[in-house]
Amino acid sequence: MKSLLENPHGFSVSLVFDGLFVGIFAGCISVIYRLLLNNAEKLLFTIIAFTKTRPFWIAFWFIVLIVMGLIVGWLMSWEGMASGSGIPQVQGEMKGYLNQNWHRVLCSKIIGGTLCILGGLSLGREGPSVQLGAMVAKGIAKITKKSQTKERYMMTCGAGAGLAAAFNAPLAGVMFSLEELQKNFNSSMLVCIISGCVTSDFISKNVFGLSPVFDFHLKAALPLVHYWMLILLGILLGLCGAFYNFIMLKGQDLFGAMKKIPAKYRIVFPFVVSGIVCYTLPSILAGGHAMISLITGHTLLVSTMLLLLVAKFFFSAFCFGSGAPGGIFFPLLILGAYLGAIYGTLVIQASGIPSYYLVNFITISMAGFFTAIVRAPITGILLIAEMTGTFEHFLSLAVVCIISYLVAHLLKSEPIYESLLGRILAKNGFKESEDADHKVLRGFAVGTGSIAAKQLVKDIPWPEHCLIVTLNRGDEEIIARGSTEIHVGDTIIALIDDNYLGMVTESIQLICGEIIPE
Amino acid sequence: MKSLLENPHGFSVSLVFDGLFVGIFAGCISVIYRLLLNNAEKLLFTIIAFTKTRPFWIAFWFIVLIVMGLIVGWLMSWEGMASGSGIPQVQGEMKGYLNQNWHRVLCSKIIGGTLCILGGLSLGREGPSVQLGAMVAKGIAKITKKSQTKERYMMTCGAGAGLAAAFNAPLAGVMFSLEELQKNFNSSMLVCIISGCVTSDFISKNVFGLSPVFDFHLKAALPLVHYWMLILLGILLGLCGAFYNFIMLKGQDLFGAMKKIPAKYRIVFPFVVSGIVCYTLPSILAGGHAMISLITGHTLLVSTMLLLLVAKFFFSAFCFGSGAPGGIFFPLLILGAYLGAIYGTLVIQASGIPSYYLVNFITISMAGFFTAIVRAPITGILLIAEMTGTFEHFLSLAVVCIISYLVAHLLKSEPIYESLLGRILAKNGFKESEDADHKVLRGFAVGTGSIAAKQLVKDIPWPEHCLIVTLNRGDEEIIARGSTEIHVGDTIIALIDDNYLGMVTESIQLICGEIIPE
Repeated sequence: MKSLLENPHGFSVSLVFDGLFVGIFAGCISVIYRLLLNNAEKLLFTIIAFTKTRPFWIAFWFIVLIVMGLIVGWLMSWEGMASGSGIPQVQGEMKGYLNQNWHRVLCSKIIGGTLCILGGLSLGREGPSVQLGAMVAKGIAKITKKSQTKERYMMTCGAGAGLAAAFNAPLAGVMFSLEELQKNFNSSMLVCIISGCVTSDFISKNVFGLSPVFDFHLKAALPLVHYWMLILLGILLGLCGAFYNFIMLKGQDLFGAMKKIPAKYRIVFPFVVSGIVCYTLPSILAGGHAMISLITGHTLLVSTMLLLLVAKFFFSAFCFGSGAPGGIFFPLLILGAYLGAIYGTLVIQASGIPSYYLVNFITISMAGFFTAIVRAPITGILLIAEMTGTFEHFLSLAVVCIISYLVAHLLKSEPIYESLLGRILAKNGFKESEDADHKVLRGFAVGTGSIAAKQLVKDIPWPEHCLIVTLNRGDEEIIARGSTEIHVGDTIIALIDDNYLGMVTESIQLICGEIIPE
Repeated sequence: MKSLLENPHGFSVSLVFDGLFVGIFAGCISVIYRLLLNNAEKLLFTIIAFTKTRPFWIAFWFIVLIVMGLIVGWLMSWEGMASGSGIPQVQGEMKGYLNQNWHRVLCSKIIGGTLCILGGLSLGREGPSVQLGAMVAKGIAKITKKSQTKERYMMTCGAGAGLAAAFNAPLAGVMFSLEELQKNFNSSMLVCIISGCVTSDFISKNVFGLSPVFDFHLKAALPLVHYWMLILLGILLGLCGAFYNFIMLKGQDLFGAMKKIPAKYRIVFPFVVSGIVCYTLPSILAGGHAMISLITGHTLLVSTMLLLLVAKFFFSAFCFGSGAPGGIFFPLLILGAYLGAIYGTLVIQASGIPSYYLVNFITISMAGFFTAIVRAPITGILLIAEMTGTFEHFLSLAVVCIISYLVAHLLKSEPIYESLLGRILAKNGFKESEDADHKVLRGFAVGTGSIAAKQLVKDIPWPEHCLIVTLNRGDEEIIARGSTEIHVGDTIIALIDDNYLGMVTESIQLICGEIIPE
C-alpha cells in the first residue's frame, strides 16, 4: 500500500510482472478447463452414438445424468458462487459486494462445469473462464500476500486473461477487463492487463493452435447501398436481445418458484431434459460448437435454422436458470450467429445480392446481439474483428451495434450481467467481507462530466468511510488537502473501508462521472 | 443538465444523433484540411522541380517562404491556441484549463497549417485534425446552445472523429477519445463517440478511398523463437522515445530562448531552413508521406535510412519548436517506421531470417515508438492493427509496446502531450473560461445536526443563485418539490451558478450541517 503512494514509478513496473504471472496461471487454468470441456463434449457424443440403438443403455445414461445432476447440485450448494456464469460474481467482487473463496470456487466450478458439459447442458465456457482467471489471480495474491489494491488489479487482469485464453482473442480480453470490470483507463492497470492477456493467449495458442474460436473468412465488405439491411438487422437484434434478457431472468424465476424442491435438487431437471435432447436434437447440446460448425461453410434451410435457434434459446435459458455452473457468453454468440444466418438467407433470397455476404451477416449479428445483451460495444466489436481477423467490416459492425444497443436501451432492458449481479446480491443480502479492519486504496478517474471537476476537495460531498489521499495528475502526485482543486483527468486515490467498499466506490464513481446517475 | 437527471434513458439516444451530427462536420473539416494539405504538398514538389535548375526562381522561392513564415507568425500571434499540435490544447480544454475560441482556431489552423506544408515544414495533419474536429463540435454545441456537459461530450467525440478521418481508422479514433481524452468508459459517451468516428470515417473513405493511410501487407507473423529480437527492439524504442520527448521540448526551449526576436517572427526560421532542405534532402519535407513511400516495398541502404531518420528527427523538432501550426503524430510514426526498418534490416542480415519480416519490424516499431512517446498503448496497437488490416501480429505488437512503455516510464520521460500541455498552461497562466453563465451540479449530505432535517423543501431559506433539483435517498432519486420532506442522510442535489459557487456552497453546507457556524 505504501509503495503505491511513495513510489508511483516502481508500481507499474512490478505490475507488469504480476500481470505476466497472473497470465501464466490464468492461461493454464483456462486451457485445462477448455481441454476438460472439449473432451467431455466428445465423450458425450460418443456416448450418444453408442447408446442410441440400445434402450437399456439409454436408461442407464439417464441414471448417470441424474447422478451427475445431484453431484453438481451438491457442489453448488457447497459453494454458491460457482453457480452460473461467473462474470457477475467477478463484477460483484470488483465492486466490493462479494468476497469469493477462491479455492472452493476453482474446485467446484471446474468439476461442476465439466459434468454439465458431459451432461449436455447448453452452457458456455467463457464466463467460467473469466471467473477461474480471476480466482486464480486472487489465489496468487493471497498466497504472495499482496495488498488489497494489488489483489483487485490482479483479479481484473486474471479475468481478462481467462477470456483471452477462452477465445484466443487477447485484445477482446483486454477490452473486456477495461469495459466491463475496470470501467476506466489507469495506465498502471493497462500494462498489467495487456501483459496478462497476452501471456494467457500465448499459452492457449500453444495448446490449441493459432486459429480463433470462430474461423470465418469474409470475402468482401457489404457495399454501402445495402446498409438499410443492417439498420433492420440492428433493430431486430436489439429486440431479440431485450427478449433474451427477459427470458433468461424468467428462466431463473421458474426455478426460483420451485419452493418445494431444495435448490440443490433443481439442477437435476436440466440434466433430465438434456437426456431427452440427446436423442432428439443433439445439435443444441453443450456450448454450441457443434451448432456453429453446421453453418460454417454450409447452407441450411431457414426452417431448420429457426428450429435450432428456438430450441437452443429455450434450452439455454432452462439450463442457465437452474443455476448450473456455466456461462451464457458462448451460447448467446451462437444465437446471434443463427439470427444473422436466418436474416441473411432471407435478405439474400429477396434482394439477390451474392450469397457470400451470408458470412458477413452471421459475424455482424454475433457482435450486435452481444452488444444488445451485455451493452459492451467495444468488446463486442473487437471480439468479432479478432475472430474474423480483419477490420474491413468495422463500419457495418459499428452501425449494427449502435442500433441494437439503442433499441435494447430504449426498451429499458438492463445489461444482463448487471441484472444477474443484482439477483446474486439480493440472494446473498449484500454479504459483507468478514475481516474488520481492511482498508483498500482505489483510484478513480475524474471524467469530463464529473461534478468534481474544478471543485476543491473539501467542497465535494465525499461518502463516509473513505479518505481522499492524493490526486494523481500526470506523473505528479498531489496530497489532497481541502483546498486542492480537482481537475478533469486527475486520478483520485481514496482509502476506503473494505466493509463499505461497494457503496463508497459507487458514490465516488458517481462523483467522478464514471457512472451516470439513473 | 436537466435531461440528464430527469431522463437518463433519453440522454444516450440523443447523444447518438449528436455524435452523428458532430461526425459529419468533423469528418468534412478533416477531409477539407487533408485535401488542402495533400495539394499543398504536391504543389511544393512541383515548385521544387521547377525551380531546381533556375537560381533566380530559387531566390524568389526563398522570398515567398519568408512571406509565408510572416503570415503564419501573424496568424499564431492572432490566435495562439492554433499553434502546435492541437492535441494538448484539446486535452487542456477537456480538463477545464483552457477555453478556445472555436472559429478563430478553425481559421488560423487551416490557413496556417496549409501554408506550413506548402513551405515544406515537417509537421503532421493528425494533431490539427483532432483539434479541428473538437472545435467544430464546440461550434455546433455553441450554436445549438447545448449544455456544458453535452458540449464536452461533443468535443471528445469531435476530436476522435477528426483522428478517425485523418487516418481512415475509426477504431483508433474511438480509442484515442477514450484513452487520451475521456479516460473512462461511460456508456452514453461511448455510443456518441462510436457514431461520430464511424460517420467521419465514412465521409473520409468516400473521398479518399478505402485503403488506410499506411498500406502495409504482412506476409507472416514473426515466429516465437525470434521474440528476443522484439525485446531488444522494445528497449531501443523506449530509449529513442524518451530521447525524442527530450529533444522535442529542447526544440521549444531553443525558440523560447530567442528573447530578442518577437515570437511571431521566429516562425520564419523553419521556413528558411525548409528552403535549404528543399534543394538538399527534399524527402524529409512536409508530413512524411514521401518518406514512408520510400520504404514501402523498397529496400534502402541502412546508411541512407539512418541519414533520413536523423535529418527528419532534427528537422521535425526544429519546425515543431517554432510553434508553427502542425502536429508531431505523423512525423513520429515515420520516425518509428524508420527505426524499425533500420533495426529490421540489420537483424535480418545478421540472423538470416527471411526478408519479408522487414515489414513486421516497420509496423511494430511505429506502435512501439508511439507508445513510448504518447503512452497510449491501446490506441497505438489498434492504429497499427487497423492500418495493416490484420490482428495476426497482436502478440508481437503487445510485447514491443509493453517493453517500450516500461523503458520510457523507467527513464521518467513524461508523455509528450502532457509535457506540451504543461507548457501551454504555464504560458497562459491557467486562463479561466470567460463564459458567465455556468451552472454546476452539487450534492450536499444532510447531517444529523442539520436545520433542514424533517423540514419541507419550501420552508428552508435556500440561498439565491441555486436550484434544489433532487433529494437522493439511498437508490431513490426524489424530485425536490416544495412539499417534499427532507430526511437526515439525504443527499441534496443543487444546481448552482458558477459565479456564486463559493458563497452558495457555504450557505447550503451550513443548512445541511456539513459545516458548523462559528
